[in-house]
Amino acid sequence: MKRRTFGTLVLSSILLLANQVIAQSIQRIEPLHWWVGMKTNKIQLVVYGDAIGECTQVKISKPGIDLLSVHHADNKNYLFLDIHIGADAQAGQYPIEFYKGNKRAGSFSYQLKERDSNAVKAQGINSSDLIYLIMPDRFANGNPGNDIVKDMRETALNRDSMYYRHGGDLEGVVGKLDYLQDLGITSVWLTPVLTNDMPQASYHGYANTENYHIDPRFGTNADYKRLGDELHRRGMKLVHDVVPNHVGLYHWTVVDKPMTDWLHEWPEFTQTTYKDQTVFDPYASQDDRRKMEKGWFDTTMPDMNQTNPYVRNYITQSHIWWIEEAGIDGFRIDTYPYNDLQFMADWTQSIVDEYPDFTFFGETWVHSVPNQVYFLGGQQVGQSIDTKLMGVTDFQLNYAIGEALNKEMDWTGGVNKLYSVLAADYQYPHPECNVLFLDNHDKDRFFSVVEEDITKYKSAVAWLMTTRGIPQLYYGTEILMKNFSNPDGLLREDFKGGFSGDAVNKFEASGRTGDEQDMWRYVKTLANYRKNNPVLHTGKTMQFVPEDGIYVYFRYDDDKTIMVIMNTNKESKMIKTGRFAERIQNYKQAKNIMTDKVFNIHEDLSLQAKETMVLELF
Amino acid sequence: MKRRTFGTLVLSSILLLANQVIAQSIQRIEPLHWWVGMKTNKIQLVVYGDAIGECTQVKISKPGIDLLSVHHADNKNYLFLDIHIGADAQAGQYPIEFYKGNKRAGSFSYQLKERDSNAVKAQGINSSDLIYLIMPDRFANGNPGNDIVKDMRETALNRDSMYYRHGGDLEGVVGKLDYLQDLGITSVWLTPVLTNDMPQASYHGYANTENYHIDPRFGTNADYKRLGDELHRRGMKLVHDVVPNHVGLYHWTVVDKPMTDWLHEWPEFTQTTYKDQTVFDPYASQDDRRKMEKGWFDTTMPDMNQTNPYVRNYITQSHIWWIEEAGIDGFRIDTYPYNDLQFMADWTQSIVDEYPDFTFFGETWVHSVPNQVYFLGGQQVGQSIDTKLMGVTDFQLNYAIGEALNKEMDWTGGVNKLYSVLAADYQYPHPECNVLFLDNHDKDRFFSVVEEDITKYKSAVAWLMTTRGIPQLYYGTEILMKNFSNPDGLLREDFKGGFSGDAVNKFEASGRTGDEQDMWRYVKTLANYRKNNPVLHTGKTMQFVPEDGIYVYFRYDDDKTIMVIMNTNKESKMIKTGRFAERIQNYKQAKNIMTDKVFNIHEDLSLQAKETMVLELF
Repeated sequence: MKRRTFGTLVLSSILLLANQVIAQSIQRIEPLHWWVGMKTNKIQLVVYGDAIGECTQVKISKPGIDLLSVHHADNKNYLFLDIHIGADAQAGQYPIEFYKGNKRAGSFSYQLKERDSNAVKAQGINSSDLIYLIMPDRFANGNPGNDIVKDMRETALNRDSMYYRHGGDLEGVVGKLDYLQDLGITSVWLTPVLTNDMPQASYHGYANTENYHIDPRFGTNADYKRLGDELHRRGMKLVHDVVPNHVGLYHWTVVDKPMTDWLHEWPEFTQTTYKDQTVFDPYASQDDRRKMEKGWFDTTMPDMNQTNPYVRNYITQSHIWWIEEAGIDGFRIDTYPYNDLQFMADWTQSIVDEYPDFTFFGETWVHSVPNQVYFLGGQQVGQSIDTKLMGVTDFQLNYAIGEALNKEMDWTGGVNKLYSVLAADYQYPHPECNVLFLDNHDKDRFFSVVEEDITKYKSAVAWLMTTRGIPQLYYGTEILMKNFSNPDGLLREDFKGGFSGDAVNKFEASGRTGDEQDMWRYVKTLANYRKNNPVLHTGKTMQFVPEDGIYVYFRYDDDKTIMVIMNTNKESKMIKTGRFAERIQNYKQAKNIMTDKVFNIHEDLSLQAKETMVLELF
Repeated sequence: MKRRTFGTLVLSSILLLANQVIAQSIQRIEPLHWWVGMKTNKIQLVVYGDAIGECTQVKISKPGIDLLSVHHADNKNYLFLDIHIGADAQAGQYPIEFYKGNKRAGSFSYQLKERDSNAVKAQGINSSDLIYLIMPDRFANGNPGNDIVKDMRETALNRDSMYYRHGGDLEGVVGKLDYLQDLGITSVWLTPVLTNDMPQASYHGYANTENYHIDPRFGTNADYKRLGDELHRRGMKLVHDVVPNHVGLYHWTVVDKPMTDWLHEWPEFTQTTYKDQTVFDPYASQDDRRKMEKGWFDTTMPDMNQTNPYVRNYITQSHIWWIEEAGIDGFRIDTYPYNDLQFMADWTQSIVDEYPDFTFFGETWVHSVPNQVYFLGGQQVGQSIDTKLMGVTDFQLNYAIGEALNKEMDWTGGVNKLYSVLAADYQYPHPECNVLFLDNHDKDRFFSVVEEDITKYKSAVAWLMTTRGIPQLYYGTEILMKNFSNPDGLLREDFKGGFSGDAVNKFEASGRTGDEQDMWRYVKTLANYRKNNPVLHTGKTMQFVPEDGIYVYFRYDDDKTIMVIMNTNKESKMIKTGRFAERIQNYKQAKNIMTDKVFNIHEDLSLQAKETMVLELF
């Protein structure tokens, strides 16, 4: 990789190249466009075209953009242009001209846009939010016209298989925003929506092949912006799922690599070990760590070399671009521990420099609190890098809520596990930034985890909505969607009613069974109660040592006190509330927020087997 | 509690007391004596005698000791005297006179001793050591004459019950030091040896009734000092088991309490919840925390009020006293999380101020790495107190080694648990100060834990001797002692041959079965290898991700490399060593330190089911 500063914009290699073929066309420049008035005003354009790298001179004549330097890559089809957008630059088209010596070999008109100063964006996701996670291929098909896009590698549409596309799209999601708002959702997280032109299983989106285009089977870039606008119009937010660690094997920069160290290359296919421990283990083998971080996530998902500055620029710019373009409010970061942590720190800082309120949560599918804590920003134990990561997907509490409801309490297990994992919160710089969940697109549906016991399931939802952090629901939780990850992937079934020809429509009360409607009301009541009661966003937490299978905790602030009582026993229990005097002594009555029933909080209280009560004290 | 500074040494309450009965005798003063030339030269004497508190004046006339102040307690049988021992004080007797007005009401001759400047003491226990834990009642009976001591509350001697005294004593331990030295032991830790004049189960020692006296059934204070001397003469060390958290219900200061807040008192008996989480949980109820820290460990073990300055002085002085008196090298601290952590910090500092090389390890019988980390010194996450604690009894690795050998490897379990817990070492300020163990006086004997599988058991011992930290063996490990904690307490059986009349003597090869002798040689070989190879004390550690049930780690320094290979499978395995090139590439051969067999380390290697090999590379 050569790097030269273009004072005169004349390449010193001019004579060497004189007799070679010069590119006649520019196939693409990324980012697709940029904006005037951004703090991020130095960007690196990736120019791609046949033999464009053989050009000896690049000119941007129009005032407003300064060409700082031109970088040649190993691959002659690439040039990287560092540009500076001046403070006085005007929106408009900026011709870029490419020369072989004095001969013009191609040109491209690059656009600087005005920023939309009225657009809502980059608000950040916080504990006042309730996130709804959607796999857009499986939620609702708003535009059957984009179900099959010719010339893409996968054109099969087959709703009978979990591994083919089903036809859901952005239009479908937009059409259900009223439904989600009514349910009490405040934020929508879609699994990745960028073009995923892979020959198989392209629906899941985690192997993108473009960085600047929405997959045409989901819609257009404009559709995604419209989704952002429609959310913001409703006071809701957009969470964007980013995958900095890897791309799809058919990503255009992989099909024709700019340079030999664009990816982490191996003599033969080497898969990551998925062992997060190698990142923080003071005793880790460097070989093991290399395999973990630089091994490929899958044969179809090459690992980006995040120590390569061109890769770093390419990733970071595309993420800033999408925030500005579509009005994204926060990022969910896929496979966080597999990234280069110094890059993650720098990447985060670059984004926060532009958007101070923007927030991030990383997927840390690991198996112990220290393993999860290590990756967080502000956590400096055993760590030379402040990753600046604000929160993680809280897998430890996810395991714990399952155990609390499924396993009888013993000294460390059952609900004691739930209590104990939360007690370890002292380790987190900002536990309130962690994202809580019962399930997601990779985990068994929680209704199946609790063996389709609706009382347990409601208890889990009550816990999710009242515990510290940012709760996330997986689509269909509210209508008792079920099934396991293995062996058939049915955890990614369609939301019935989202697709034309569906026999029933569970977006409507009339399409739901009695149990489904009951659950839907339960979720809606709790979600809206949560939405309207800041005590459940920012209130303090107090939890009591579980006794006799009963777990009691409080959320409280100067205005309100919420008491949550979880009976994890297989039998109904009578609870004496005297033990909780520390929090209830100033109150007389409690209202069950699900039933509106009011009673004396100092009298004994009866809970059904596996029931959880959410009480507001008066 | 009243506190007055004695400028004139005349009590202002003189007139009030004039007509009351004055003490005629001083029953005791503690510390029993002190030394000249100590940095700890301000001490607080506890004076006890009938109505001694009614004295109005205290005099110490002999130059060398200044009486700084006299404190009266709620209980008129106590006085607390703050004294300062001058830099020029001479060893000798210092009369202390007690007056009612002008009338002498009693006197006591307090001794200041010369320090033994040749005595070895306070050396600290570190990773070069191998600790042998003994319950002295159960190890060897050196002096049958002290088996029963009349006038003590428990006089029954019954070797057929695990809950009565068996007659072991200090003389017995001293008699076996050559045996222990031969085995490769460097440090001896006895469960508490202070007077335990409790009516039941006095043998275990964790309910002391005196702070300054060895239990007469174990021997005398002089015997304990002799144990220290005999250890030091052999280059070995003495670990003393301290119990700052509680005393026995018949402790003399409990039988006649100095003041109402000497203990943590409750309206009715309140047991600790044993929930360490309440100490660090940011959401803990104050009620729960109070119960945990201030609840009694048991009906027979009242909880000391460590926020009371008189209690603090009493505990701290007695521990400094024992270091000086008996030449103790390190403390094991019982029930660490139950103590007042600010007191623990101050207590530790006081001891280190006097003995800079002294070390401490705390019993933290908890169930997760963060729960264990929290209590350590230098760990400031979520903690306003630097406890200064150097190491803990590493229960997390204890659970993990059991799981590694007993459970098949899966993604998080089996040997992956062992790997993962060690990887979390990034959380410890000083992981090398943690004490490793397979079992102790509270835990099932590890030979039983591994279902009496000798290969597994040897693997565990190999792991214990080669992993970072300070290994601790429980007495009898080397002769395959077995049995479980419940229901019969047989984990505290006698060491056969330590008691007259024993049918066999397992201190001698002739008394051991073939398996026992084989195990004894195994422990001895490894222990002595460890003792003579600093790489196993201070060498770096490298561990590799377990694959196929095989766990490989190294200890290495500039001089040596030790490779440990653990096969946790139920079948024998052929191992390819190429994966470990990072550590073996500069070596050609390996010597199995148990068999002395030498072989090419780059060729495939066969391990039996559950076998662990310890190899030195050449």
